[in-house]
Amino acid sequence: MSAEQQSETGAQGSIVLSVDAMGGDRGPAAVVAGIAKAAQKNPNLRFLLHGPKDELEQLVSRRKGLSAVTEIRNADGIVHMEDKPSHIMRHGDNTSMWSAIEAVRNKEATVVVSCGNTGALMLLSMLRLKKLPGVNRPAIAILWPSRNPQGFNVMLDVGADIRADARDLLQYALMGVSYARNGLSLPRPRVGLLNVGVEEHKGRTELKEAHELIANHASDANCDFVGFVEGSDIPGNRCDVIVTDGFTGNIALKTGEGTAKLIGDLLREAFSYSPLSRLASLLALTSLTRLKKRIDPRRVNGGVFLGLNGTVVKSHGSADPTGVAAAVKLAYDLAQSGFSEKLAARVASAVTPDHDADETGQTNGTTK
Amino acid sequence: MSAEQQSETGAQGSIVLSVDAMGGDRGPAAVVAGIAKAAQKNPNLRFLLHGPKDELEQLVSRRKGLSAVTEIRNADGIVHMEDKPSHIMRHGDNTSMWSAIEAVRNKEATVVVSCGNTGALMLLSMLRLKKLPGVNRPAIAILWPSRNPQGFNVMLDVGADIRADARDLLQYALMGVSYARNGLSLPRPRVGLLNVGVEEHKGRTELKEAHELIANHASDANCDFVGFVEGSDIPGNRCDVIVTDGFTGNIALKTGEGTAKLIGDLLREAFSYSPLSRLASLLALTSLTRLKKRIDPRRVNGGVFLGLNGTVVKSHGSADPTGVAAAVKLAYDLAQSGFSEKLAARVASAVTPDHDADETGQTNGTTK
Repeated sequence: MSAEQQSETGAQGSIVLSVDAMGGDRGPAAVVAGIAKAAQKNPNLRFLLHGPKDELEQLVSRRKGLSAVTEIRNADGIVHMEDKPSHIMRHGDNTSMWSAIEAVRNKEATVVVSCGNTGALMLLSMLRLKKLPGVNRPAIAILWPSRNPQGFNVMLDVGADIRADARDLLQYALMGVSYARNGLSLPRPRVGLLNVGVEEHKGRTELKEAHELIANHASDANCDFVGFVEGSDIPGNRCDVIVTDGFTGNIALKTGEGTAKLIGDLLREAFSYSPLSRLASLLALTSLTRLKKRIDPRRVNGGVFLGLNGTVVKSHGSADPTGVAAAVKLAYDLAQSGFSEKLAARVASAVTPDHDADETGQTNGTTK
Repeated sequence: MSAEQQSETGAQGSIVLSVDAMGGDRGPAAVVAGIAKAAQKNPNLRFLLHGPKDELEQLVSRRKGLSAVTEIRNADGIVHMEDKPSHIMRHGDNTSMWSAIEAVRNKEATVVVSCGNTGALMLLSMLRLKKLPGVNRPAIAILWPSRNPQGFNVMLDVGADIRADARDLLQYALMGVSYARNGLSLPRPRVGLLNVGVEEHKGRTELKEAHELIANHASDANCDFVGFVEGSDIPGNRCDVIVTDGFTGNIALKTGEGTAKLIGDLLREAFSYSPLSRLASLLALTSLTRLKKRIDPRRVNGGVFLGLNGTVVKSHGSADPTGVAAAVKLAYDLAQSGFSEKLAARVASAVTPDHDADETGQTNGTTK
């Protein structure tokens, strides 16, 4: 890749992503296969790939055309899943994760993609990229399969921080709206605040305060606030953005994933019970594949860290090439829409109102 | 029913349940059909049925043999789903719900069954039955489909109270253990404390304190404490009793239900997509029915209010006769095992240790 192409948006409209090749459960081969897959679909994609140079060069050279769009940045250290984030913060400056974040800090790329240790990735991202002015707690947002026309809801925070007060929840709402607009192309997202009932008098004190704050900011933020929503609305069609603290969000996410997995396993058992049910499963294969594709977590792979100077896409640790390619696609969409800058403007507008006109004006048609 | 049979456990070993016929979404017909179904399977069952006398007499007389085991207690007032619990507390003494609770208060029955308004049922139960000595917050426990040999986990609190401190969580653990022993016949239940990670240093302060308290009481309570568990363990096989506060529990429950429902709907859509998939669904019918039965919420219908002088089984508001019969079966099992007394002894033993020998000694073989 020429030096000219290494600018933030690259030459000829190309998009540069900073990809951590290491730390995922399947090693760098899955990551390289994933970016190769994404590169075939998006000729505008360019990669800064971080990890042990010799190993990565071998892997990249085997993929047709990938060398031409990839620059390898040597980093010998690896952040492992069991490493303590605080240890990596102090001693991790030789790791591929650190190097990947550094490239966004230096404005060589706008978005980081990593399959590694979530805690370490969040801590390093906060340390090196710093929080956006006005943001108290960054959040992790994910896409959740739902009954919405777009097929997904945005939910945040799903685990960046176990605490959140009313102002944090307001910021999550604003960041989630910006993400839904740029990541899901929704001009006017509907926002719900997660609670144990939809009545306004219900729930904890900070939720009642946040209800009022979000209601007051909804018009400025070009979103519709639907008020309190319940756990059953997470896969539903009442809203597009679900706001909650990182403790509750993490429990809800893992409960939903666990329930889906249990049903999937039981479905397999049911279809392997007898010769007749095995025959039925063959006939039903297309239907079941259609269902699987609809709720396949690999299709929506990628938690997004919001509230930092730069965007970080956290791919699932066990992501296979399809999963990595989905995370890269998400990073590409966000980079192309200028999401990092728009989010910064959106958050700043809540601190100093009347500063958010340009986000909505520029949004339509800029993504996908 | 003779006066003799109206004692707490009834004559000839019969069990008397106090059933609120009103307030469910499907009206008293579903409740009467449900208790008739349960009565056919358990000849020992006797009912005190609360509601408008004329209407109930008509419904009961149409079910063969039901009049002989049912005594109707007239109550003209109905608690509706949209009624405010505080209003019912002040003005609800003419309702069928109030009357049903009163029969347990007067020791005419040990367990209440109601399909009505959860908030009102909890508030009336606390007001009339009072909390057990030593219990700060009562809890609602439910059975959750899981990979356990018994097919279910006990989870509490799923919504009685949105707050819980470390001592409350300890009491939930003890009450959940007692419920798992008497409701699921598990001599030595495994207990997990719900958190955002399994490491001991993770989570909120009250969770770390509760971790220590439960660990210290596990041996006395004849249970195994497995430490922190995550949302994905709720449908899993790591433990039998999952302890959490009512806010988190409510969100997890509704998220799990919503996810299961979404997958069910998508499965139906997938199988009605084309003529071939419709043919496949016919062949797969047995397999799908087997799956549906395994996770059918009606089979495990009944949240149980724990921590009161008497046991209250809250059936789902939309329960059909099968659902009501399941709630009645659960109430029967709990009444027969002497659950209310054992739970009281268990909680008392945590306040004054060395008082819990009789619960475990009597348990094996007393249920089901």
